[in-house]
Amino acid sequence: MGPGPSCIHDKVYAALSRKTIGHLDPYFIRIMDVIKADLRTLLKTENTLTIPMSGTGSSGMEACFVNLVEIGDPVLILINGVFGMRMQDVAQRLGAEVDSLEFKWGTPVLLDAVKEKIEKKHYKIVAVVHAETSTGVRNPVAEIGELLKGSDAIYLVDAVTSFGGMEIAMDEWGIDALYSGTQKCLSCPPGLAPLSFSEKAVAALENRKSKVPNWYLDLSMIMQYWKGATRAYHHTAPINMHYGLYQALKLILEEGPDNVYRRHMDNHEQLVQGLEALGLAMLVTPDARLPMLNSVKVPEGVDEAAVRSTLLKDYKIEIGAGLGPLSGKIWRIGLMGHTARPENVERLLGALKTILP
Amino acid sequence: MGPGPSCIHDKVYAALSRKTIGHLDPYFIRIMDVIKADLRTLLKTENTLTIPMSGTGSSGMEACFVNLVEIGDPVLILINGVFGMRMQDVAQRLGAEVDSLEFKWGTPVLLDAVKEKIEKKHYKIVAVVHAETSTGVRNPVAEIGELLKGSDAIYLVDAVTSFGGMEIAMDEWGIDALYSGTQKCLSCPPGLAPLSFSEKAVAALENRKSKVPNWYLDLSMIMQYWKGATRAYHHTAPINMHYGLYQALKLILEEGPDNVYRRHMDNHEQLVQGLEALGLAMLVTPDARLPMLNSVKVPEGVDEAAVRSTLLKDYKIEIGAGLGPLSGKIWRIGLMGHTARPENVERLLGALKTILP
Repeated sequence: MGPGPSCIHDKVYAALSRKTIGHLDPYFIRIMDVIKADLRTLLKTENTLTIPMSGTGSSGMEACFVNLVEIGDPVLILINGVFGMRMQDVAQRLGAEVDSLEFKWGTPVLLDAVKEKIEKKHYKIVAVVHAETSTGVRNPVAEIGELLKGSDAIYLVDAVTSFGGMEIAMDEWGIDALYSGTQKCLSCPPGLAPLSFSEKAVAALENRKSKVPNWYLDLSMIMQYWKGATRAYHHTAPINMHYGLYQALKLILEEGPDNVYRRHMDNHEQLVQGLEALGLAMLVTPDARLPMLNSVKVPEGVDEAAVRSTLLKDYKIEIGAGLGPLSGKIWRIGLMGHTARPENVERLLGALKTILP
Repeated sequence: MGPGPSCIHDKVYAALSRKTIGHLDPYFIRIMDVIKADLRTLLKTENTLTIPMSGTGSSGMEACFVNLVEIGDPVLILINGVFGMRMQDVAQRLGAEVDSLEFKWGTPVLLDAVKEKIEKKHYKIVAVVHAETSTGVRNPVAEIGELLKGSDAIYLVDAVTSFGGMEIAMDEWGIDALYSGTQKCLSCPPGLAPLSFSEKAVAALENRKSKVPNWYLDLSMIMQYWKGATRAYHHTAPINMHYGLYQALKLILEEGPDNVYRRHMDNHEQLVQGLEALGLAMLVTPDARLPMLNSVKVPEGVDEAAVRSTLLKDYKIEIGAGLGPLSGKIWRIGLMGHTARPENVERLLGALKTILP
């Protein structure tokens, strides 16, 4: 029940340990094709370039920026937590000219500020985190997409924690580049980073003046392995991780994406009620709260690390600590994917009731 | 029996599907520490920075170069196959001034040529592939290390296919930076890249003038997660892949590394004898042959793709095709890790006997 990795269904564990076959085996290529199709369904996109990258969620962030940024490109990053900060660091290392718009941690990105900024200056990329795992804040991704409509900026969204736990309508919201990770609401072990590029993003990649300065994540080569009749070897895909992702996507589609999102919301509401009944307060206002990542204020005088340690040792429950300016001030309770079940919420609430003074 | 991924022991599959725990869980940190120690034992090194990177073998290549290269650095790459070419591409994308020394594919790197080259010019990095998976050639890694002793060049070795299948004595041979992959002779699914940096390589990293232009693979941050009493979160480690690697390393240590290397050599000799009895010829001369990757010349008039396809469809045996200039001219037969067993060699020889005209 931490900020990920989340709990995993037995069927996904079983898939993970199926026999490893070759990355050019026709049977594996069929699995790849199903994964692409299922990712597109869940992201509500028609994007051809919709594939998992061979690394964890952060490699998805790296992949988006390194494929799209050339030295000197103006980039705007909307920051209200650790992962916005990380985007800034990634883009700066690649030589982008980064402007940032910062908002108080625990509050969402404000649309008026974004509007003002993008009216003043043209950006090649505007980037935001959908679900800020470090604070529990949901940013207004659809609304920012609305502001950007008609502009030629590439709209880049971090969906690491949101994907699989709340609706994402990539095409409708005008998102051009998106990455996620498998270990949050997709309920698969960490190790792959689903990524999707719109035609606009692919055109930006194809029109680069310089080679992508990262061979391993160069999508112009990787897409030759993921499409067409003949698959060009680039690097050996993490075969068994793909088995896991295949099964995890099937589980979400079988339950029905809308039912899955509703389950996340129901469990979140049950958790918040229980926490408030224990006298605890949430960090984020109700309108901006994430269902899958719940930030709870640590009460005055409570040793937050001791509570986490007791939960882990005596109750086998992991919850997360605060990061950066919120370190020591909040706990982060994950209700991601297979973790989002009433029995987990009850078990945690029962344990907290016993532990807290 | 292709060029990897190799066959995998049931105990490794079982480890892969053990319950996913958090990347900061004290139990997982113990697993990390055992993996580091076992990698050091197998590589015969004392290097503190000896860890698996969160990507496949090619991410290990990317990681070595991106952490060590700054723009304009002179780099010498010894090339006699696909993976030497890949090193050149990786280093050039990072802005290195790359000189290369090319040798005919299917023959090893020649020491005299290397000696001449490094006497003429000072290089920051000299890089070579130990086991060239594209040709089946073993390069003289110990001997090149001998040539470089006393120089301040960083000696960088690709051990993707050699590690776990033949001796590597990193410290004795003077290797400063080394990477591998899990899916070859370690007999684990693809997804991690063991990497080791000597003190000299770490010093080069620490003395960089510029930040590492790749956040995901920046070892200066990643090492803070892998060492010391408090582990600083960088990215979420691929937990289950580490379970697999832990078990795979244990299997090699239990059998005894020297016994494992002997088993690779025995099976290789059995295979070569059998192939020659079928009238087939090896590409590489005996002194430079790899035990784990056997390149066999396709006889005149034989449709090489049809043979591979029949092997896969009717016998469930995968073997590899030739790459680059060797495309259509050779088959590549892997005897890596758990694949290197007499019953596999016999099964393949039996199938080839039936299929070949």
